[in-house]
Amino acid sequence: MTILVVGSVALDTVETPFTRKEDILGGAASYFSTAASLYNQVNLVAVVGSDFPQEYLDFWRSRPVNLAGLQMQVGKTFRWTARYHLDMNSRDTLDTQLGVYAGFHAVISDENRQSPLLFLANIQPELQLEVLEQIPNARLTVLDTMELWIMTARAQLTEVIKRVDILLMSEEEVRQYTNQASIVTGVRQLLAMGLKYVIVKQGSYGALLFGADGTYFSAPSYPLEEVIDPTGAGDAFAGGFLGYLSTVQPAPDGRYAIDDIKCGVVHGNIIGSYVCEDFSIGRLRTLTMDDIAARYQALVDCSHFDLSWRNTMGMQFIAPR
Amino acid sequence: MTILVVGSVALDTVETPFTRKEDILGGAASYFSTAASLYNQVNLVAVVGSDFPQEYLDFWRSRPVNLAGLQMQVGKTFRWTARYHLDMNSRDTLDTQLGVYAGFHAVISDENRQSPLLFLANIQPELQLEVLEQIPNARLTVLDTMELWIMTARAQLTEVIKRVDILLMSEEEVRQYTNQASIVTGVRQLLAMGLKYVIVKQGSYGALLFGADGTYFSAPSYPLEEVIDPTGAGDAFAGGFLGYLSTVQPAPDGRYAIDDIKCGVVHGNIIGSYVCEDFSIGRLRTLTMDDIAARYQALVDCSHFDLSWRNTMGMQFIAPR
Repeated sequence: MTILVVGSVALDTVETPFTRKEDILGGAASYFSTAASLYNQVNLVAVVGSDFPQEYLDFWRSRPVNLAGLQMQVGKTFRWTARYHLDMNSRDTLDTQLGVYAGFHAVISDENRQSPLLFLANIQPELQLEVLEQIPNARLTVLDTMELWIMTARAQLTEVIKRVDILLMSEEEVRQYTNQASIVTGVRQLLAMGLKYVIVKQGSYGALLFGADGTYFSAPSYPLEEVIDPTGAGDAFAGGFLGYLSTVQPAPDGRYAIDDIKCGVVHGNIIGSYVCEDFSIGRLRTLTMDDIAARYQALVDCSHFDLSWRNTMGMQFIAPR
Repeated sequence: MTILVVGSVALDTVETPFTRKEDILGGAASYFSTAASLYNQVNLVAVVGSDFPQEYLDFWRSRPVNLAGLQMQVGKTFRWTARYHLDMNSRDTLDTQLGVYAGFHAVISDENRQSPLLFLANIQPELQLEVLEQIPNARLTVLDTMELWIMTARAQLTEVIKRVDILLMSEEEVRQYTNQASIVTGVRQLLAMGLKYVIVKQGSYGALLFGADGTYFSAPSYPLEEVIDPTGAGDAFAGGFLGYLSTVQPAPDGRYAIDDIKCGVVHGNIIGSYVCEDFSIGRLRTLTMDDIAARYQALVDCSHFDLSWRNTMGMQFIAPR
């Protein structure tokens, strides 16, 4: 089952409290494609400028990343510059240069329209809508977005949300979009728009899954000794999530079992945690399925506890007055 | 197995974005005693002034809270005033009036020295040391502290940390005390001081348990629809944690099974989450063991996932170059 992703491929300049890296491979679709291609074939739809380094194309060609939908245009590749704070859970965007994305329109080929799984990576909601209109029959559609579009393209973003199955948002984005202080209340409002699931990304705290069917799942995060660069963790999360789902069979009606959805969220957390261990897609280049399995086991070990508690002393409850 | 607590009993003035409450029951030892007395007898050592409302004493007398160690002195009860930010995970202390705590020294009676479980609630480290010297043989000692003492009484706090079994700290406090950006590295530094466990409180994100034996456990938090007032959540967490442990039998060498410690952390999260549903100890007054059991089950349901993942499509891993 192939996965189609539409989003940004970029060259990032990233400053952490410890290091600065210039013009490294970035962009939501880059992280997603590299992550999801660990599991299955990814069809990448994006645009790069004439300055885009050949080595990244060569790398993707060494993986099951289909680049037929990657446009190359004369001009500059999308550039993003950001600086992280000391706790690495927050950052400031210092500069954004759209470059060839300024006039970009996604054209989905007949072959790519057959992908049953679609990830609308973070990009202008208008573009996301164009993509959805070209693929009316995707089996599972997952949407990511960012604060910028909540603030500047709310109406279009709302249209996109109404047409997809699963929405990924950070806690802060849930608050901004719904204007609710409570995540639980905000998510309920989002689910009422027709979504099947909302996944709330919590950075180093893991992720929460809320289902329209009442599902609530809190996926633990892996405690990293050292965070080198958290850029792309959310996109890699999506790659692990959809990558895993691309390997399991949904029910005949197209629905995924809730245990598989949960398992996908755990895979998302795992890939998201690995990404933070190096700049750009550095860690994803060397990641093996054994690494993923090891961290899966670590997350099982650190989050499971007794299904019922012991009461060896004969607990005596004091009734309230 | 009774539990001894030494700490503050206070009258709080709390401002949330929605409400303001004046002179309500507060103080770390108040929250702890009320929470832990749901499980077992609590011996409370603290001091209140002549202005302390009789109704709170009457309430504790209706519970297994032994007030023999609660001094009453002429003067003002400790007062604390704080204002919460919109996301309720952060607050500013606006005013602190020590009142009768200014000259307080804890005197531990012979009866209270027999308590096998000791909670040193947040209070001056000097006072905590005085208590430890009077009870050299407690079976399990748990320490809480705050930013103020890390900044102003670091040497004394270090002495206390070296003498206890379990330390409770928020993430921010771990960073402040250890001067490490990484929680994992900071906790390792703390464990090297001789602690058996460090529990890192993460507010609405739950809690992490780290053991000197390499244990790592991430306890999920309960997703509250509405947080009314998070004051005392950490103290109530400690009450649930030690309250639960007071109901299980340690091994003959005095050690608690790791599954019981984990279960205690879950109980801590549960009681901590309930406290946030009302001001002061309001919610703890009506809480029943059925409520606790219901939330325990909810936390099991929301955090457990498949021990091994399905691979119905025959996952094919792409080896890295």
